[in-house]
Amino acid sequence: MKNILDRNQNKAEEIRGLLNEKKVLMVNIISSPGAGKTTLLERTIGELGSKFRIGVIEGDITTDRDAQRLKRFNIPIVVINTEGGCHLDSHSISKVIDFFDLDALDILFVENVGNLICPSQWDLGETFKLAVVSTTEGDDKPAKYPLLFREATAVLLNKTDLIPYTNFSHESFITDLKKINSQVTLFEISCTRGDGLNNWYNWISERVIK
Amino acid sequence: MKNILDRNQNKAEEIRGLLNEKKVLMVNIISSPGAGKTTLLERTIGELGSKFRIGVIEGDITTDRDAQRLKRFNIPIVVINTEGGCHLDSHSISKVIDFFDLDALDILFVENVGNLICPSQWDLGETFKLAVVSTTEGDDKPAKYPLLFREATAVLLNKTDLIPYTNFSHESFITDLKKINSQVTLFEISCTRGDGLNNWYNWISERVIK
Repeated sequence: MKNILDRNQNKAEEIRGLLNEKKVLMVNIISSPGAGKTTLLERTIGELGSKFRIGVIEGDITTDRDAQRLKRFNIPIVVINTEGGCHLDSHSISKVIDFFDLDALDILFVENVGNLICPSQWDLGETFKLAVVSTTEGDDKPAKYPLLFREATAVLLNKTDLIPYTNFSHESFITDLKKINSQVTLFEISCTRGDGLNNWYNWISERVIK
Repeated sequence: MKNILDRNQNKAEEIRGLLNEKKVLMVNIISSPGAGKTTLLERTIGELGSKFRIGVIEGDITTDRDAQRLKRFNIPIVVINTEGGCHLDSHSISKVIDFFDLDALDILFVENVGNLICPSQWDLGETFKLAVVSTTEGDDKPAKYPLLFREATAVLLNKTDLIPYTNFSHESFITDLKKINSQVTLFEISCTRGDGLNNWYNWISERVIK
């Protein structure tokens, strides 16, 4: 296992070097199944697609359903089907990176396999990890799945529009999250309603490499 | 990997034999994080705890929060913290099974680690697997994560009370699910409101080994 992780790390550093050289921001998006990663991408590409050149790697066990949802934006998309694999790794990224014209790209979003655990353990060569968590999963996710929340540069708390219909405690969520990662940037959003997304758009825009 | 899975399978068969001999029904409950496994257990133990002798194994990466929620029922509970591990396996079950007085147990619920992928690949020696999926995760979960839905004897579709506030398509969900597993038993429930739970209680009661 240590060998596999070492080899993954070496390949990830290679990818990170290449993307830095090409000035491509790579965001590794991690969440539970159905937390709203694809809807976030639909919103973000819809808003920022005219300002920045965006590409997407869609990681899924099977099917190209998420990629189909993004087709209308007419941007470069690659689907990686892991065929049962519970996360992407740097070798799977390396195999598809040549599909993109990196000189003509500002942001490369990687939608990882829907899984709050394994993807956090694998460096893909990303600029940073982004955690998406939805209010309907409950307020205890940072405490129960700490690795992702420790590793993430930013957390998007999605489905805030559903809080009134759940027993989600905002205070518990924030307290646990800050205990695990006091430096993390938090955005509270509803991707279906559009609430809170402007702050996210501004923040990610500032991160694009000039 | 094949060796590890073979060894897991052997130990699982050993556990299955022991539980059959002791007439204990073991249910391996699998879902995404926050789909409602613990709330289902609270409801089910509350309803059936006076009729049957119930024990619980709580699988979590870290913390004993789920076990704390069940403490008030005064039933035997064992917590397995996987410390980063993304699923339980038969060896982890084997190490704790002696904690229970199997002669004084009718049902042993195993709440697996919150993960829609890896737990499906590991036989714990259970009588059957139970999939819990919530409407707020979206209607595409069976299509995108087929293994669990193929392996499960029953599926509980939870959080039906939230359907009006989401774009969940009941028809898509059912069509995909039946394509993957035409034999599966489906219960549509809301664990917070209590909707649809009587059918589940009756069904699980009939499965207790006499």
